Amino acid sequence: MSKVTLAEKFAKFDDVWSPKLVGALNENYIKVAKCLGELDWHSHADEDEFFLVVKGHLDIHLRDRVISLDPGELFVVPKGVEHKPVATDGAEIVLIEPKSTLHTGDTETEQTVAIEDQPWI
Amino acid sequence: MSKVTLAEKFAKFDDVWSPKLVGALNENYIKVAKCLGELDWHSHADEDEFFLVVKGHLDIHLRDRVISLDPGELFVVPKGVEHKPVATDGAEIVLIEPKSTLHTGDTETEQTVAIEDQPWI
Repeated sequence: MSKVTLAEKFAKFDDVWSPKLVGALNENYIKVAKCLGELDWHSHADEDEFFLVVKGHLDIHLRDRVISLDPGELFVVPKGVEHKPVATDGAEIVLIEPKSTLHTGDTETEQTVAIEDQPWI
Repeated sequence: MSKVTLAEKFAKFDDVWSPKLVGALNENYIKVAKCLGELDWHSHADEDEFFLVVKGHLDIHLRDRVISLDPGELFVVPKGVEHKPVATDGAEIVLIEPKSTLHTGDTETEQTVAIEDQPWI
């Protein structure tokens, strides 16, 4: 594996809510994504999901509160917890989640991107 | 779990090569550490290890090359690969590694910090 320079990766794409693979870590993938607007409510029954904001601002809505993330802040959505990421003015994020994780969890929506359609960049 | 503001965590300690726990992600811990000088050569037989530099500069020496990391750059040391982290002028880093990972891998040295001695902050 080579090192990953996050700024270089984010310069390579503009589509939002469409994670790209940049590395593997044990049974997880390391991904980068751009966010703008809202992703659908969903949960992952057996998988924690790591969010680190690199640029912009991301609100992770949970059913009982909102986790508000600026650059240099991270949050792990615990397995089974419903969440809805919202980035009104845009955000660039690093995601780490098991290789088995489905994009929108147990809920397939028009925004769902299958893992086989998440490219390496 | 609460969100983790990395700058707040790094403000809480000054010791180097002594990882602190800030989160759990599936079978991994998320840790922060300050680095200054060199850690001993070691490897982890069955575990990949994630390094993200937040501040400063970290050189990860491998036997055949050096991975040179500035802020916003990350690298996964693959399982079984010998490595020696060097931060001549200091660095602040995020580590993610399996809960079972030993600090200096299969090599116990004077720098080794047992997992039970790695505190939550």
